[in-house]
Amino acid sequence: MRMYDIIMKKRNGEELTGEEIRFFVDGYTSGEIPDYQASAFCMAVFFQGMTDRETYELTDAMAHSGDMVDLSRFGDLSADKHSTGGVGDKTSMIVMPIVASLGAKAAKMTGRGLGHTGGTVDKLESIPGYDIALDSEEFLDQVEKIGIALVGQSGNLTPADKKLYALRDVTATVESIPLITSSIMSKKLAAGSKNIVLDVKVGSGAFMKTVEDATDLAEHMVSIGKYCGRNVTAVLTNMDVPLGHNIGNALEVKEAMAVLRGESRGDLYEVCIALASSILCSVFSISREEAEKRVIGAIDDGSAFAKFREWIGTQGGDVRYLDDPSLFPEAAYQHEVLAPCDGYIEAMNAEQIGLVSVLLGAGRETKEDAIDYSAGIILKKKVGEKVTAGEPLCVLYTNRESVIAEAEKRYLAALRFGAEEPAPEPLIYKIIS
Amino acid sequence: MRMYDIIMKKRNGEELTGEEIRFFVDGYTSGEIPDYQASAFCMAVFFQGMTDRETYELTDAMAHSGDMVDLSRFGDLSADKHSTGGVGDKTSMIVMPIVASLGAKAAKMTGRGLGHTGGTVDKLESIPGYDIALDSEEFLDQVEKIGIALVGQSGNLTPADKKLYALRDVTATVESIPLITSSIMSKKLAAGSKNIVLDVKVGSGAFMKTVEDATDLAEHMVSIGKYCGRNVTAVLTNMDVPLGHNIGNALEVKEAMAVLRGESRGDLYEVCIALASSILCSVFSISREEAEKRVIGAIDDGSAFAKFREWIGTQGGDVRYLDDPSLFPEAAYQHEVLAPCDGYIEAMNAEQIGLVSVLLGAGRETKEDAIDYSAGIILKKKVGEKVTAGEPLCVLYTNRESVIAEAEKRYLAALRFGAEEPAPEPLIYKIIS
Repeated sequence: MRMYDIIMKKRNGEELTGEEIRFFVDGYTSGEIPDYQASAFCMAVFFQGMTDRETYELTDAMAHSGDMVDLSRFGDLSADKHSTGGVGDKTSMIVMPIVASLGAKAAKMTGRGLGHTGGTVDKLESIPGYDIALDSEEFLDQVEKIGIALVGQSGNLTPADKKLYALRDVTATVESIPLITSSIMSKKLAAGSKNIVLDVKVGSGAFMKTVEDATDLAEHMVSIGKYCGRNVTAVLTNMDVPLGHNIGNALEVKEAMAVLRGESRGDLYEVCIALASSILCSVFSISREEAEKRVIGAIDDGSAFAKFREWIGTQGGDVRYLDDPSLFPEAAYQHEVLAPCDGYIEAMNAEQIGLVSVLLGAGRETKEDAIDYSAGIILKKKVGEKVTAGEPLCVLYTNRESVIAEAEKRYLAALRFGAEEPAPEPLIYKIIS
Repeated sequence: MRMYDIIMKKRNGEELTGEEIRFFVDGYTSGEIPDYQASAFCMAVFFQGMTDRETYELTDAMAHSGDMVDLSRFGDLSADKHSTGGVGDKTSMIVMPIVASLGAKAAKMTGRGLGHTGGTVDKLESIPGYDIALDSEEFLDQVEKIGIALVGQSGNLTPADKKLYALRDVTATVESIPLITSSIMSKKLAAGSKNIVLDVKVGSGAFMKTVEDATDLAEHMVSIGKYCGRNVTAVLTNMDVPLGHNIGNALEVKEAMAVLRGESRGDLYEVCIALASSILCSVFSISREEAEKRVIGAIDDGSAFAKFREWIGTQGGDVRYLDDPSLFPEAAYQHEVLAPCDGYIEAMNAEQIGLVSVLLGAGRETKEDAIDYSAGIILKKKVGEKVTAGEPLCVLYTNRESVIAEAEKRYLAALRFGAEEPAPEPLIYKIIS
C-alpha cells in the first residue's frame, strides 16, 4: 500500500477502505508518511469530503493512535463535555459539578487556551493549588470517590490528531467537516466517556459562522458517536456575543461560582442548564423536563456549589478563594470603557473581544506565553442593550498600563451601535441527538 | 504576505495576484516555504484551476527562478522542440538536424529517461564519444557554427520546476493543466528559443489519455507562449502505440538514421515531417505545404543526414558508427516473441511495452540505475496488422537472460488480438498554433 495511491484515490472522489485510512493514520503518526503527503491528502479531503463510514474509520484510527482511557468501571454513568470554543465560555466548570452532584461521573480532560479563546485548564489554575496533572489512577479514583475530576490532557492521547491538527492549521485545511469531526470525536472516544455533550458554538466568535454549517458538523459528530457506541448530544449555542459577562481566567471562575450559587441568571445560566440537562437525559434516560428540573434543583438547593467546592478542594485547590472570591488578586489597572454615543448595541464581534482580552494579558499569542490570571474584561452592556453616551460599556482589567489605550480602541471597534433596538437572537438554536 | 493566506485564497477559488504567485515560487525555491504548504497549494490548484493570467505568472516566475539561456543572437531563427513523452519517441534526433539543414538554429536542452519513456540524452550517449555536457559558450558557438546542438540540462535551469515537479510526483498533483503547462513552458522559456514546437502525445502510452485533455493542455501552452512572445505550435500525435519500430537507445539511433536517410516510412516518418514542418512554418513564416516540401527535400537530397553526421561528429560522437551501424554492440540475447494465435492486433499498451524495455535493461527504474544501450525491442507487428500463429511479433534485445521469460509474458499481455481488422486510428490528431 502506498500513500500516493491513497491521495490519488481520494483526489478522484473514490471512497477509501478502513485499511487505507488506518495505513494513513498509523504511517503519519509514526513519521513514515511525510507532512507533504498528509497535507495534500487533507486538501483532497477538503474538496472531496468523506462518507460517514470513512469519517468513522478516520475517527476510530485516530482515537486508537495513542492511549485510550478506560472508564468502563463507571458503566453508563460516565459523562464528558466538549465545546468547539468560544469567548467567555466557562460552562465546563459549571456543568460538570452540576451533573456530578446529580449522580453522573464527570470525567473530563481539557486543554489550554490559544488565540482568542481561553482554556479550562488555565481558568482552573487561577485557583491557587489546583492540580491539573493527576496521573491516570488518581484521576479515576477521584471520579469514583466524588464523581468528578477535570485534568489536563495526558501525554499520549490521540497523537495522530495532535500532529494532523498542527499540520492542518498551517495548510488551510482546518475547515473540513470530516476532518473537524474526526479531530473532536477521536479525542472524546479516547477520553472514554459513554455520554458526551457537545456545545457547538455558532457565530462571529466561533469557528462555525452559520447555523447550517454548525448543524452539518453536529449531525456528523452525533452520527460518528453512535457508530462507536457512545451517546452524543450536540447543543448549538450562540457565539455572536461573548458568553456571560466575564472574560479572563480568575474573572471567569468568579462568574462560574455565581451561577453555581444561583446568583446569576442570563445567557450563561441558560446555556449551562441546557448542557447539564442534555447530559442527564443521556445518562439516566429521562425526559428533558425532568432533567431540567433536577439541574435547577441542584443549583437552588446548594448541592451544585457544594460539589464544586468539594471537587476543587479534593484536587488541591485552596477553597478559601471560593468562600471569599475577594481573595483573588486584582489587576493593577481597572479601566472603564465609556459609550461614545447614545443608542443600542447592535452587534459585538466576540472574536475581536477575545483578542482584546489576550492583549490585556488573559491569554496566549504563542504556546510559550505566560498568562496573567487577573487580566480580562467584565462586560457591562451586551447586544440589545440601550446605552447613553458616557455610560460604562465594560471594565478592562490588566497589569499592562501600556496596552490600555489600544485595548479600549479595539474594544470599541468590536461594537456596532444603532438607533433601533435590534431583534433578539436565539441563544440556543437547536439540540441534536 | 503569508503562504497560509495564499493557499486559503486559492482553496476558496479566488484569483491570485502576480505578487502572490512570485512569493510562492521564490519562497519555495529558497526553502522558506515548506513542502507541506506547497503540496497543499498544488492540490488546491488541482481542484480550483488557474486563470490564464495566473498560469502565465506562475510560468514566468518559474522560468526566472534560475538561469535563462540567451539565444537573442539568433534573432527569430532559434528553434526548440519538446515532447510530452512517449515510447519509441526518437523524433528530436530526426527533426532537429532536418530543420538545422534548412537554416533554423536548433538549440535544445534535453533530459534523461525515467520510468516507461526514454530520454534523448541517453539515446545520444549510446553513440560512443557524444558529449552531452557542453558549457554554455560551447553550446552557443556550436549552434552558431553548424546550426544545431543538443545537450543535457545544465545545473540551474528552472530550479523551482525541478523542486515542485518532484513534490507533485509524490503527492498526486501532477495531473493539473496549469501546473503541467507552467512546468513545461517554464523550461522552454528558460531555454531561450523563439520558436517552439510541442509534440503532445495522446493515448495509452502518454500522460494525456484523451484528445480533449491533450487539446486543453496544448491550447494553454500555446497561449502562455504567446503571452511571453514566443511562437508555439502544438502537434497532437497518437501514442496508443509505440512510435516507429525500435525501442531502446542504440536501436532508436539506428531507426532515426534510417528515417534521415530516407530509408524508412511509416508513423515515425510522418510525425517527424509534421514536427519539422511546424518549426519551419514558424521560423520562416511560410505555408505548411512549402515547409513540408522543404523537409521532404532535405531528407531526399541527403542534406538532413549530412547535418546529422556533422552535428554528432562536432559534438564528439564517433561517426564511424553512423556510417556503419553494425558497429553498435549487439545484445547477447535476441529473443523472438511469437504470435500465440491467428488474428489482428487490435491494441498495444504502449506504457506496458515501455516498461518491458526497462526490464530488458533499456531504461531506469530509479535515477541511479545504469542503462544498457544495446537493450530494447524491435516491433515486427503493430496495431492493425494481421498475424498468424507462430509468426514473430517482436524481438527482445537484452543481456539479462533471466528476465526474458517475464518480458515475453508481459509483452504478450500488452497486446490485444481480435478476429476483425480494427478501424485505423489517426496518427496526427491536430495542429494548434
